[in-house]
Amino acid sequence: MDHLPSWNDGPAKSAIESFVHAATDAGSPQFVPEDERIATFDQDGTMWVEHPIVTQLAFALARVFALAPNNPKWKDAEPFKSILARDQAAIAKFTMKDLEAIVMATHAGMATGDFHATVSEWMTTAEDPRWNRRYTELVYQPMLEVMQYLRANGFKIYIVTGGGQAFVRTFAQQVYDIPPQRVIGSAAKTNYAYTKEGRGVLVKQPALLFFDDTAAKAEDIYLFLGRRPRAAFGNSDGDRQMLEYTQGNGGATLAMLVLHDDAEREYAYGPANGLPDVKLSPFSQATFDEAAAKGWPVISMKNDWKRVFAFNP
Amino acid sequence: MDHLPSWNDGPAKSAIESFVHAATDAGSPQFVPEDERIATFDQDGTMWVEHPIVTQLAFALARVFALAPNNPKWKDAEPFKSILARDQAAIAKFTMKDLEAIVMATHAGMATGDFHATVSEWMTTAEDPRWNRRYTELVYQPMLEVMQYLRANGFKIYIVTGGGQAFVRTFAQQVYDIPPQRVIGSAAKTNYAYTKEGRGVLVKQPALLFFDDTAAKAEDIYLFLGRRPRAAFGNSDGDRQMLEYTQGNGGATLAMLVLHDDAEREYAYGPANGLPDVKLSPFSQATFDEAAAKGWPVISMKNDWKRVFAFNP
Repeated sequence: MDHLPSWNDGPAKSAIESFVHAATDAGSPQFVPEDERIATFDQDGTMWVEHPIVTQLAFALARVFALAPNNPKWKDAEPFKSILARDQAAIAKFTMKDLEAIVMATHAGMATGDFHATVSEWMTTAEDPRWNRRYTELVYQPMLEVMQYLRANGFKIYIVTGGGQAFVRTFAQQVYDIPPQRVIGSAAKTNYAYTKEGRGVLVKQPALLFFDDTAAKAEDIYLFLGRRPRAAFGNSDGDRQMLEYTQGNGGATLAMLVLHDDAEREYAYGPANGLPDVKLSPFSQATFDEAAAKGWPVISMKNDWKRVFAFNP
Repeated sequence: MDHLPSWNDGPAKSAIESFVHAATDAGSPQFVPEDERIATFDQDGTMWVEHPIVTQLAFALARVFALAPNNPKWKDAEPFKSILARDQAAIAKFTMKDLEAIVMATHAGMATGDFHATVSEWMTTAEDPRWNRRYTELVYQPMLEVMQYLRANGFKIYIVTGGGQAFVRTFAQQVYDIPPQRVIGSAAKTNYAYTKEGRGVLVKQPALLFFDDTAAKAEDIYLFLGRRPRAAFGNSDGDRQMLEYTQGNGGATLAMLVLHDDAEREYAYGPANGLPDVKLSPFSQATFDEAAAKGWPVISMKNDWKRVFAFNP
């Protein structure tokens, strides 16, 4: 039986299958007990489309419009002014500080349950501008098959994302079959407070507890899981430490990177294309070199995937 | 079949059984789907002995002696001076700041794997002074039965402790059948670094990421799990918000407090005994009153438990 039907035969598919056999065959010298079978997946660019902007930023921009009537000063204050003026050139140049201001203004100051409801509603109505599909449909079918293949072999599957943990948990069960406690991501502080009726609720604060990217991915995996993964999948410099930390487990491990080299079916960006990388966390030549030096198989979207999405574009 | 053989019949045992029936009987109006069945247990004083000092402090004091030869200045510097002089009266009066200094000096500055090994070795050799038993034997048999009873009914069992997450994870699998990713506790920051051989490791820093007590218990449950528990067990003011947050789930919930009223078999302290409470996080009259007002059953060690430990003292 082919567990990875959306994959072409080649080194990437073989690497996944060889790893699973090495980790799960009782006679394998690299056999891994089931409670140590943990696989971590980056989300943006690894599990779904992140180009030209990550989905969470699209959500935040939509929230700026929704909240603008209650925030009249935004018309004259950056970065909100550029958003409300739909100034795409200015939006493309937003700094990390701009993005943080946008996220804090649209994600904080509400109870966690209210945030969850707001994200849920947006996800069922918003569409991406290229495919005119719900964002949750822009998930890579081949990567869903890897998750399912690993799950069927006793692996626990985690998302480890620079995106917001509360944001991703809203749809992870439905989209990835991953329960909220298996989503690790950037997290805002929350404050315990009481409603008028005396019910304890958590209110999201405009302050980060941690930004789950680069070294923080390894640190947060330890914080949440207490041990190293056996397999890890990423697509950018932000995933290097997670892949190193996984490979550092020794024995049967798998560390892989998705390369966006398919301008026709998705997008092409990163070192293989010689194109400038528009993301906050690029796939730089240094990471490409590290992958080669350490034997991390690189997944070519163009060559390794029979199809990109579950739907036919 | 009696799932709670170490419990006497009474309101506490009945409350546990009634909750399980309400949550798991398919015909129950309060039926809880299996993926929402989450139960959280405080550790010190709820799962094992915390009197006269919590086990992690006993470990830290032992580490001060072990590390003293490399820290000659400790002979003249508090709080280390009092520890090395075995000045029990001074130790009993340590402030939170003293304790933090002791924990940082004994828990930080090493790779996570080295800390794990140090705790493991201590746990297999150290004995408590009253029963002359390993600390991991001082676990309450009736509470282990509650964990097992809930687990058999589809609940995921978590420890949510003010104690150190890395400390408790070292023995939670063996003692509670709880894997590391289901231990939530106070956590130190870690820094990702490389060994001389280029292997990525995490080094424990002398700084807290969070102290998992009082309101932080609710906040950290949300951080780690993304949803409210269905059942929660505590024994002190530090557990109030966790119990409130659990009860706030609505439907079938259970919030219980262990009362230490058994001077003969264990210890008696807290409001029911009119004794001064020696702990950092006492069971105050205010919490006792909240339990009565909100219908949280209080577990009397003396009346509700046939035996306290698995061994015969």
